[in-house]
Amino acid sequence: MSLIVQKFGGSSVADAERVFNVARIVTETYDKGNDVVVVVSAQGDTTDDLIAKGNEINPNASKRERDMLVSAGEQISISLLAMAIEKLGYPVISLLGWQAGFLTSSSHTSARIRRVTPNRIRKELDKKCIVVVAGFQGISRYDDITTLGRGGSDTSAVAIAAAMHADLCQIYTDVEGVYTADPRKVPNAKKLQDISYDEMLELATLGAQVLNNRSVEMAKKYNIELEVLSSLVKAPGTIVKEKSKMEKMLISGVAKDTDVARVSVIGIPDSPGFAFKMFSKLSTKNINVDIILQSIGRDGKKDISFTVAADRADEVKSALKDYIENIGAKDMVCSTEVAKISIVGAGMESHAGVATKMFEALYDAQINIQMIATSEIKVSVLIDKKDADRAVTAIHEKFFAE
Amino acid sequence: MSLIVQKFGGSSVADAERVFNVARIVTETYDKGNDVVVVVSAQGDTTDDLIAKGNEINPNASKRERDMLVSAGEQISISLLAMAIEKLGYPVISLLGWQAGFLTSSSHTSARIRRVTPNRIRKELDKKCIVVVAGFQGISRYDDITTLGRGGSDTSAVAIAAAMHADLCQIYTDVEGVYTADPRKVPNAKKLQDISYDEMLELATLGAQVLNNRSVEMAKKYNIELEVLSSLVKAPGTIVKEKSKMEKMLISGVAKDTDVARVSVIGIPDSPGFAFKMFSKLSTKNINVDIILQSIGRDGKKDISFTVAADRADEVKSALKDYIENIGAKDMVCSTEVAKISIVGAGMESHAGVATKMFEALYDAQINIQMIATSEIKVSVLIDKKDADRAVTAIHEKFFAE
Repeated sequence: MSLIVQKFGGSSVADAERVFNVARIVTETYDKGNDVVVVVSAQGDTTDDLIAKGNEINPNASKRERDMLVSAGEQISISLLAMAIEKLGYPVISLLGWQAGFLTSSSHTSARIRRVTPNRIRKELDKKCIVVVAGFQGISRYDDITTLGRGGSDTSAVAIAAAMHADLCQIYTDVEGVYTADPRKVPNAKKLQDISYDEMLELATLGAQVLNNRSVEMAKKYNIELEVLSSLVKAPGTIVKEKSKMEKMLISGVAKDTDVARVSVIGIPDSPGFAFKMFSKLSTKNINVDIILQSIGRDGKKDISFTVAADRADEVKSALKDYIENIGAKDMVCSTEVAKISIVGAGMESHAGVATKMFEALYDAQINIQMIATSEIKVSVLIDKKDADRAVTAIHEKFFAE
Repeated sequence: MSLIVQKFGGSSVADAERVFNVARIVTETYDKGNDVVVVVSAQGDTTDDLIAKGNEINPNASKRERDMLVSAGEQISISLLAMAIEKLGYPVISLLGWQAGFLTSSSHTSARIRRVTPNRIRKELDKKCIVVVAGFQGISRYDDITTLGRGGSDTSAVAIAAAMHADLCQIYTDVEGVYTADPRKVPNAKKLQDISYDEMLELATLGAQVLNNRSVEMAKKYNIELEVLSSLVKAPGTIVKEKSKMEKMLISGVAKDTDVARVSVIGIPDSPGFAFKMFSKLSTKNINVDIILQSIGRDGKKDISFTVAADRADEVKSALKDYIENIGAKDMVCSTEVAKISIVGAGMESHAGVATKMFEALYDAQINIQMIATSEIKVSVLIDKKDADRAVTAIHEKFFAE
């Protein structure tokens, strides 16, 4: 007998029919003799609808009250799923975040899980109940309801799996697993049998939004085996674990991120400290800078280009405006017509030439590279947004062609 | 400085505009230097919508899961009201039933309040916060969410007022107070300045659905002064208290109840025990019998008629069917085409002729009386349903005509 944690996102429980679909997956797992803990998000658009309702009243409402409002969403979905499981004739109980023992920090709307005390969950499992837990939510030490921020249900599931030493944590989504590229865009994208935590982390950061990043970090920390699989198609998914042993591919995937802006500051004095001061202004505003490119100084001036998330571009401009005038820089230009294409793979650590192969693919496709960044298991390039899909296909062909 | 508890029903917070209307009433009370605790029901039809959602999945769902589902309704309304109060610039916090300290029995969907421990409420009031509390809900000793059943928010408000020794408990509704008759039906119905708990209890039982009965019982027990008033019209309401001193009216109101069925069992053997056994069969099914009328025995047989709530009539028939056949009774007939008209007033205790005056009014209007029941402060008659409104007007005229 194993303990299995299963997580279902909002689209998996969007209506009555889908709720019963989930109920069947859960009860089949239970019928195999497993203890089952199910973590659910709010149904479909419920969270967005509640946020809209709150904004109608007060768009500047306190985060504490916003958490009170949106956490009603999972309360509805867990009770409906429990009712469906009851209907199928199984013993079941639904638990809110605080009932399930989720103690979090008190930073409302983006709380961090401090501790999971699964006494109640264990008690209900001992009674042979299927336990349905509200994802995304917890309670602060002041007894206030908190939420973990978007994608938090993945983290809830992994945290329960870690606290209870579960044998497996299954993350059900609307895709069948992790692919070498977006299967809707690249026809011969392949489903991976397994992938390492680090590769998954790079892919998640790079816009292949299969799993929430914090959940992968936590799974890595506590060595929880994850399985990403579809709630609609019955097929084995992709296992995320410490080391991907089964496949010896150079790279595990090609990812595209179009939510990116390139900022170029032109004509910065070529002496120490200017770049540091500029980026420290951004970090005090909590703006993450990704790829950075600095030109070689010429005539006592240099140019610095960097990328940020597209929706932070305006903040960057206003944060740097005064500074740039003060230091007498010539200009600041900003473009969101760019895309970041990345290849990820633990294999590339020990293989030279992976980056070259990627650049060759882009050259063959006559796609211009604006910026390059590399890490031990990743190579990213910035290109024109209009070339993005073509680039992914070309790179995928190069690495994965039969 | 006083502590005032204010309760607003679902229609008072049905949309954003009404939520702000409530927020203004609350903040005006706060501005006068009072501590304010606000108890709110779920918005408009939210509770019914949630119940429908649950029934779509499983109409026989456990009561525990139903409570989990519907209690999300008040969670939404308290956070929205708190957001509106924040928008007006006041310090405020919303609290769920369990956060506000409502410990209840564990009879889900109709739980009884066992104890209110208002530590958290008091702490927030000490911080000068307006406290918005979810009505209708609490928590069992197993840490499960419970609901108090329909109308439970009134009880929540009175329970807080009792636990905190509030100076006043205001129940805001869509009428301006308690009237001598339904003001929509009887044009010169008068608003009462005050009414005693006992009179209010009789009126509530009799279908003048202004206040939930349990809340009045609790207010009487703890001697909490209630005020019934309108959330839409600014005017003094009706005070409910131990003794109504201010007015010396014979009766305080005329009430109509059309949710009633008359059952007649004809040809019961005229010897001891038969009536007792019949009614004990009903009480084991938790069916309340109201007016009872027994004919004088003749030829060794007698007839017994009684009234029950209309929606229990079918249960009565199936509960008594076998027994009636066994004892050889002749027939059982059932009618819901009846209405109960009642006059209530502490004044009638010391005044003979009140009942006569009522019967005279009905005689003048040529309305036939089927059954009569009296208590110390109440006279009820059962008449044809079609005559109900005419009867109320005629009786009201008789007692309240200028």
